[in-house]
Amino acid sequence: MNVSMKDIYISDLAAFDEGKVFNGFFLVLLKQQRTTKTNKPYLNLILGDKTGQLEGRIWDIADPRIAKDFDKGDIVKVRGSASRFDERLQMKIDQLRVALPDEVDKADLLPSTTYDVAALWSQLLACVESFTNPNLKLLLNTLLADPAVAEAYREAPAARQLHHAWLGGLLEHVISLLTLADRVATHYPLLDRDLLLTGVILHDIGKTHELSWDIGFDYTIEGTLLGHIQMGVEMVERAIATLPSFPDHLRTLVLHMILSHHGKLEFGSPKLPMIPEALVLNFVDDLDAKMQAISTEFDKTIREGKGPNEMTGKVWSLDNRQLLNTKRWLGEDKG
Amino acid sequence: MNVSMKDIYISDLAAFDEGKVFNGFFLVLLKQQRTTKTNKPYLNLILGDKTGQLEGRIWDIADPRIAKDFDKGDIVKVRGSASRFDERLQMKIDQLRVALPDEVDKADLLPSTTYDVAALWSQLLACVESFTNPNLKLLLNTLLADPAVAEAYREAPAARQLHHAWLGGLLEHVISLLTLADRVATHYPLLDRDLLLTGVILHDIGKTHELSWDIGFDYTIEGTLLGHIQMGVEMVERAIATLPSFPDHLRTLVLHMILSHHGKLEFGSPKLPMIPEALVLNFVDDLDAKMQAISTEFDKTIREGKGPNEMTGKVWSLDNRQLLNTKRWLGEDKG
Amino acid sequence: MNVSMKDIYISDLAAFDEGKVFNGFFLVLLKQQRTTKTNKPYLNLILGDKTGQLEGRIWDIADPRIAKDFDKGDIVKVRGSASRFDERLQMKIDQLRVALPDEVDKADLLPSTTYDVAALWSQLLACVESFTNPNLKLLLNTLLADPAVAEAYREAPAARQLHHAWLGGLLEHVISLLTLADRVATHYPLLDRDLLLTGVILHDIGKTHELSWDIGFDYTIEGTLLGHIQMGVEMVERAIATLPSFPDHLRTLVLHMILSHHGKLEFGSPKLPMIPEALVLNFVDDLDAKMQAISTEFDKTIREGKGPNEMTGKVWSLDNRQLLNTKRWLGEDKG
Amino acid sequence: MNVSMKDIYISDLAAFDEGKVFNGFFLVLLKQQRTTKTNKPYLNLILGDKTGQLEGRIWDIADPRIAKDFDKGDIVKVRGSASRFDERLQMKIDQLRVALPDEVDKADLLPSTTYDVAALWSQLLACVESFTNPNLKLLLNTLLADPAVAEAYREAPAARQLHHAWLGGLLEHVISLLTLADRVATHYPLLDRDLLLTGVILHDIGKTHELSWDIGFDYTIEGTLLGHIQMGVEMVERAIATLPSFPDHLRTLVLHMILSHHGKLEFGSPKLPMIPEALVLNFVDDLDAKMQAISTEFDKTIREGKGPNEMTGKVWSLDNRQLLNTKRWLGEDKG
Amino acid sequence: MNVSMKDIYISDLAAFDEGKVFNGFFLVLLKQQRTTKTNKPYLNLILGDKTGQLEGRIWDIADPRIAKDFDKGDIVKVRGSASRFDERLQMKIDQLRVALPDEVDKADLLPSTTYDVAALWSQLLACVESFTNPNLKLLLNTLLADPAVAEAYREAPAARQLHHAWLGGLLEHVISLLTLADRVATHYPLLDRDLLLTGVILHDIGKTHELSWDIGFDYTIEGTLLGHIQMGVEMVERAIATLPSFPDHLRTLVLHMILSHHGKLEFGSPKLPMIPEALVLNFVDDLDAKMQAISTEFDKTIREGKGPNEMTGKVWSLDNRQLLNTKRWLGEDKG
Amino acid sequence: MNVSMKDIYISDLAAFDEGKVFNGFFLVLLKQQRTTKTNKPYLNLILGDKTGQLEGRIWDIADPRIAKDFDKGDIVKVRGSASRFDERLQMKIDQLRVALPDEVDKADLLPSTTYDVAALWSQLLACVESFTNPNLKLLLNTLLADPAVAEAYREAPAARQLHHAWLGGLLEHVISLLTLADRVATHYPLLDRDLLLTGVILHDIGKTHELSWDIGFDYTIEGTLLGHIQMGVEMVERAIATLPSFPDHLRTLVLHMILSHHGKLEFGSPKLPMIPEALVLNFVDDLDAKMQAISTEFDKTIREGKGPNEMTGKVWSLDNRQLLNTKRWLGEDKG
Repeated sequence: MNVSMKDIYISDLAAFDEGKVFNGFFLVLLKQQRTTKTNKPYLNLILGDKTGQLEGRIWDIADPRIAKDFDKGDIVKVRGSASRFDERLQMKIDQLRVALPDEVDKADLLPSTTYDVAALWSQLLACVESFTNPNLKLLLNTLLADPAVAEAYREAPAARQLHHAWLGGLLEHVISLLTLADRVATHYPLLDRDLLLTGVILHDIGKTHELSWDIGFDYTIEGTLLGHIQMGVEMVERAIATLPSFPDHLRTLVLHMILSHHGKLEFGSPKLPMIPEALVLNFVDDLDAKMQAISTEFDKTIREGKGPNEMTGKVWSLDNRQLLNTKRWLGEDKG
Repeated sequence: MNVSMKDIYISDLAAFDEGKVFNGFFLVLLKQQRTTKTNKPYLNLILGDKTGQLEGRIWDIADPRIAKDFDKGDIVKVRGSASRFDERLQMKIDQLRVALPDEVDKADLLPSTTYDVAALWSQLLACVESFTNPNLKLLLNTLLADPAVAEAYREAPAARQLHHAWLGGLLEHVISLLTLADRVATHYPLLDRDLLLTGVILHDIGKTHELSWDIGFDYTIEGTLLGHIQMGVEMVERAIATLPSFPDHLRTLVLHMILSHHGKLEFGSPKLPMIPEALVLNFVDDLDAKMQAISTEFDKTIREGKGPNEMTGKVWSLDNRQLLNTKRWLGEDKG
Repeated sequence: MNVSMKDIYISDLAAFDEGKVFNGFFLVLLKQQRTTKTNKPYLNLILGDKTGQLEGRIWDIADPRIAKDFDKGDIVKVRGSASRFDERLQMKIDQLRVALPDEVDKADLLPSTTYDVAALWSQLLACVESFTNPNLKLLLNTLLADPAVAEAYREAPAARQLHHAWLGGLLEHVISLLTLADRVATHYPLLDRDLLLTGVILHDIGKTHELSWDIGFDYTIEGTLLGHIQMGVEMVERAIATLPSFPDHLRTLVLHMILSHHGKLEFGSPKLPMIPEALVLNFVDDLDAKMQAISTEFDKTIREGKGPNEMTGKVWSLDNRQLLNTKRWLGEDKG
Repeated sequence: MNVSMKDIYISDLAAFDEGKVFNGFFLVLLKQQRTTKTNKPYLNLILGDKTGQLEGRIWDIADPRIAKDFDKGDIVKVRGSASRFDERLQMKIDQLRVALPDEVDKADLLPSTTYDVAALWSQLLACVESFTNPNLKLLLNTLLADPAVAEAYREAPAARQLHHAWLGGLLEHVISLLTLADRVATHYPLLDRDLLLTGVILHDIGKTHELSWDIGFDYTIEGTLLGHIQMGVEMVERAIATLPSFPDHLRTLVLHMILSHHGKLEFGSPKLPMIPEALVLNFVDDLDAKMQAISTEFDKTIREGKGPNEMTGKVWSLDNRQLLNTKRWLGEDKG
Repeated sequence: MNVSMKDIYISDLAAFDEGKVFNGFFLVLLKQQRTTKTNKPYLNLILGDKTGQLEGRIWDIADPRIAKDFDKGDIVKVRGSASRFDERLQMKIDQLRVALPDEVDKADLLPSTTYDVAALWSQLLACVESFTNPNLKLLLNTLLADPAVAEAYREAPAARQLHHAWLGGLLEHVISLLTLADRVATHYPLLDRDLLLTGVILHDIGKTHELSWDIGFDYTIEGTLLGHIQMGVEMVERAIATLPSFPDHLRTLVLHMILSHHGKLEFGSPKLPMIPEALVLNFVDDLDAKMQAISTEFDKTIREGKGPNEMTGKVWSLDNRQLLNTKRWLGEDKG
Repeated sequence: MNVSMKDIYISDLAAFDEGKVFNGFFLVLLKQQRTTKTNKPYLNLILGDKTGQLEGRIWDIADPRIAKDFDKGDIVKVRGSASRFDERLQMKIDQLRVALPDEVDKADLLPSTTYDVAALWSQLLACVESFTNPNLKLLLNTLLADPAVAEAYREAPAARQLHHAWLGGLLEHVISLLTLADRVATHYPLLDRDLLLTGVILHDIGKTHELSWDIGFDYTIEGTLLGHIQMGVEMVERAIATLPSFPDHLRTLVLHMILSHHGKLEFGSPKLPMIPEALVLNFVDDLDAKMQAISTEFDKTIREGKGPNEMTGKVWSLDNRQLLNTKRWLGEDKG
């Protein structure tokens, strides 16, 4: 029995019975021809949408219901049935055609933030408005007023795989950091709030050039060779070069915050944080990334049907440690 | 020309001219007999008060104006003159006698917090009152109501040498952490606020047994062999043992937060943080210690007469890095 | 052709021909439903007994000879045939039912020590009797007289996977250590023999709480969050709390030995060994674990049919090094 | 008995007898007031010229033959006598006055290359002329034609303390590297020679901003916060920005070579070498620095009068290892 | 359709269509019996020739066209068809027989250098002839004149898996190093050229005993327990023992160069390089191995059909970094 | 008042009053000319005997009672008085002459074992006699029968500075290890006792060449460049080369034990222990060295007058940890 188009996302499939027939639009992330043990060629696809990824198999390549001319990066409509192999979900594909232009919203096909991007962007601009340092305010307004920068800033993921790896993830991460850093700035009078928040807004701006997000998320060659730290420093240097009255000392400090925000040489920062604002930026950036990773991991654990008494799997970005969901486990104890 | 007693602290001496005569009460932190190159014995003392330490020399041991019967740990009144040797201040002592009981307030002789301890303590209790979890509230009220615990908690330094190394330093550090952690708890709904704040209040409670602060700050033998993590866990276990309805799961989590608060095995935590509250506790504890160390370093730099264009010396507790005082340096640029 | 029940252990199967039919009792360690490439559901089981583990497949779930109501942790009787897939042994299961109570001895279903547990236990008690320090003798007799402690101490494995990972493994490891440590104590008059042997007996006692061994060997949640070092310290603290005349210094030293027995911070000991007895405990514990791992590896190599001229595979617990069986290799040379 | 001015350099003093009187011009690198054990103030100076450093003591501050108004950074003429204290040479200063303008050539007062700077510079330009890649040739000619860059490039030391720590050291190091890298480029046809040599010429160009060399050699604040890698990248980016037809790919590769030339993240390169030319640049840079350090160490050993059978002291920049002078030691054996 | 014997190498097969029938001679590197999911036994082979390795499957063991009596190490002639499984090439084997003596040249069956070994060997001897140090010339002539040494030196691979892992690889690597080291010796007059080149020729001579290359490349047991450094030192010691007038100092230096050529203790050198020649040997050896690994990786990338805009995979021997082929990528930019 | 010659050892001086006059024979370990602050030359000596070292000062070089012609390595008779400077003992020397031949026993002038060397040597030979493996017995008897080896083996210290740094220290350490290793061999039937004990006897035999002990203890140049591991392997290889029937496998194992006895690559062993006997050798060697270091440290603590409640200083060879003397501290508690 069929399912109507709009309702199907990859995250829904986990609940499907073996053999359930369905159809849907997906992005082709990988396409490979392989051979069965009996020498019959078949196609192996990785399909994606904003909720996840799915392996698909086309066992009969010659079937006229299977389009010949599709490739990695295309959006396709497929029809087939669900199966499981070694605990992973697969799709046996019976029909496949390339989608028509505008038949599907591309935003549904890559994972993207669950927040309203326009609202996040307004929060960012409002934060800049609250600055008392006119030079920093001018620098940020100059950068963010550039349409190319602004569009990329709103779209970029914060990482390829680790935390906030979805469209809009960079902006979402920065907004979370701004609130957190503002609270810390209030706590330590030693800190120059505007400088700290400038660091928050600019520290990962180079990721708009380091990463590409057309077909899945990946590094550009330039990004691999130069890195987002260098790319961000260059973007900011160029903006400052257009502001003749920007003080030299302030310029050095802003660049230092971008350079040092990974906190350690072995994490790719060529300088350790040497001003208090840079130290705080490194701390809140690290904390927010880890809290987001934990939150993602807890959601996944629940989706996988694990009980409150089970720890998560080993989390790579947290030194392979396992984590326990405090609130669920404490709930157990009260029952 | 003499100086009256109450006015002299070791921090004042930096401004004294060579040879300036003065007198004052100090704590004897070390007493050693040595010999000059010409085989003459002399006494070398280390004297301390709440503002610092000072080397003193008694060149003529037999002088009747020098008491014979004093030792390490005694409070003494000395009279002598200031000198400098290899940039360090020294005192040539001409007269020395043991102080009478009550002649001087011992609180003046060890460095101590500049905050009002009673006010800090009230803040701590008020924070506990704000808890919604009755078990954690009961646990903390039980522990802090123990007069021996409460007195030690109000007096203990937070460390022997690194950050908050002064009487009341532990309490001051915890109060700073409570405010900071509360801000972070508001930021991440994932966190159990009461559990996090319980961790903040209890994480270093073992330092009340690990350290001694009668004559300078030092480790007890038990503290050296067991450590404040183990000692704190034991204090909390004993308190919980008196609370029959304390839930087992909650007990495990509170102990886990103490055990894991150093964040890494190589820093002496036998377990990595495996719940979000433990991860946050490690972050805020580390950040607050480092911010305090930076603040202390900046004050020292100003006291030493360094200009805004000079970085601090290499700071041991910050990987030997040098730091720049942002606000002073930016001030330069504006002039 | 069938094989009678009592004779079949998993270790026997290596010698079976393809397709050989047999039956036997096993513990279900894992039960998963999967799908073949043609979408047919099947069951994948991991079965265990005291000699090892075995994958089993049930291709026809609906077969009336397959019980419906069994689960992980059950003891089952199965009938089927041997096969090999990618060098691993598998069982094609044709019949399966849950075992009746008392139909099989549970001790046959988990790996367990080959020594007589009662004899090992007597050796342990005899060793305590040999102590000259009355306080340590009393402490150990108190602890080991607790029936819950004694039962768990006799049953517990020494580890989940590494050395002595079998029922009774903890006791077997401790008895080996006692003899070895006694020899070392005789060699160095500096050592306090009773304190050293107390450390041997108590160092891993927390594993009785850290590990569970009902269905395979695993960590409890409390064990994961607190660790056997902390759990052992707590058990000993509680026992000492019942002995009012136990000297404080001795208490500190016993706890220090448990805390420091892993020898390095990065191995999870919050303190380095700082007394000679703790240093020796770390050495003999480490040596005995490694010698046991080597012995296990040599046995496995022979079971796998490797010749005297072949080194073992890379041994994870020995820094991935390969080992050579000295005696077998020298035998070669003499031939 | 006096010695005439031009003939005295600090390196000559090692041969002087105790008490030998001499005079000379030196740069004041440090000036501190201290006190003797008997409370008498004196001045401690560090004097430098191009051959080394020397401690000087002025015991009678009030002596009218001692100028009052000199400071760190001044060139002074002093008269006094040689002494030794704990194996270090010292000068007891009897007379001191500030030098007149042009009375002494400043080039004699800081260590500087023993090569002819104009000749080295011609070699550099000739090398650029040999390029076949027009874009790289244009880039280098543009940069080196900038008078400020060219002057700084000819003057800068290559390091504050380690290898080539003298005026002109950067240029000398680059010329040595060019010859070496050219030989390696010939050996491996895989390599793009012009790109490799461009990397050699530009890799340390940021040191012209990172270091200051007016009074001794030191880091600028900007240099400390940003580092010569970032500063060099920025200089090159700006030059490329003026060359509209410079290819994007080539720009990325040139910047990558500067970014990665330290070879490891923990040495402050934010990127590992990922093209063969960057890998070779890191190797030859490291080798040349080490060979220069060894050569300096061997010269020092001979100056200190050590025999061919003695190893050098522990060399910090070579992992604290000691070195043996092959040729001298072999000479021994032949005798 | 069949293909004639001489033309088929494993590297040709990548271009074959599914199901293409072919025959050829290969070396059996591994032979294992396995079972299909339906319990049917089959044979899994790994076949090799000088161009690579290939998995082969024999599904019908009883087929009379399949020889019964072959084993690992045999040369066989097989006939079958090409297939692909999970992107790896496989061969379905229909016929197999053991090759007759002399039916195939063994040199075709293991990867071997593409250079003319006799010419390389002449270069080596010519280099020795160019020495001015008579003792070193005599030592090398003595060693290389030993027929067993000379044959093994010409055949040995330079490594089991990493760089130059082919017959003649050791000699090829040494010749490349000799040229490179000679250029470096010219550059630094400090260096004793003959000693450096002696180190180049002898540093890996122990690999002729550490490795075996009869059936694929592997470590001997002696090689695993002693290592090529120790084995090489022993070979050289024995040769020197036959040269009564060889100077002691020179002997120590030659042995030191072999001992220290890995450059770091953790890479298996028991001594750090402590003479300049040993330091240079470590550098050129490391550089040449890495350049060869890069070259191999670039060739592989082209063979796999990757475009100029793609980086290589992660290269294990280069810290898992990815590399970019400079010349190909720059070519892109110019188009 | 004078003290007679035989009675004075450096260790006695700690008890002397300031200014006490004495005379004695000492070995000159260092002789340097220095200058006082007032430019007067004086001599600084380091004198040694078997109980320690002592700084000596000769203030009047021209004094006719001071010999002119003595140097480092000479035995001298001095007369002078005791003084203390910065807690270190010094001697003001008034008279000095070179000792006559045979006027003093050189064994009194370097620290040496307190055991009877002849008895230790007999124990060693008796142990070899107990071997059942004829080849190992023959190898050891061959080596130890060589008079040069035997004499050096009886004299050599086990280290320059760390453990057993005294004449006869190597033999003393080996005898302790033999007993300990024999106990361990009995405990683990897996072990080949004769091979293990052979490793014990030979593991440090290269130290007889690595170290020199004529004037204090130092490394030879050959020892620095090759190391005692390589030197020991060579000695054993040469001995085996004289034993035609010595089995190859056994030879490999004996050499492997010497090569791997440091246990880790970063400690200078080019191979990890890969046979059980090598693993045990590394353990017992490490344990015995550490126990000896602890024992030395405890003795020193008592000599320095520290109480049972004080920990030792930080011990370099034990990762800078402090240690507590168990037995003394427990004694405290009982009082």
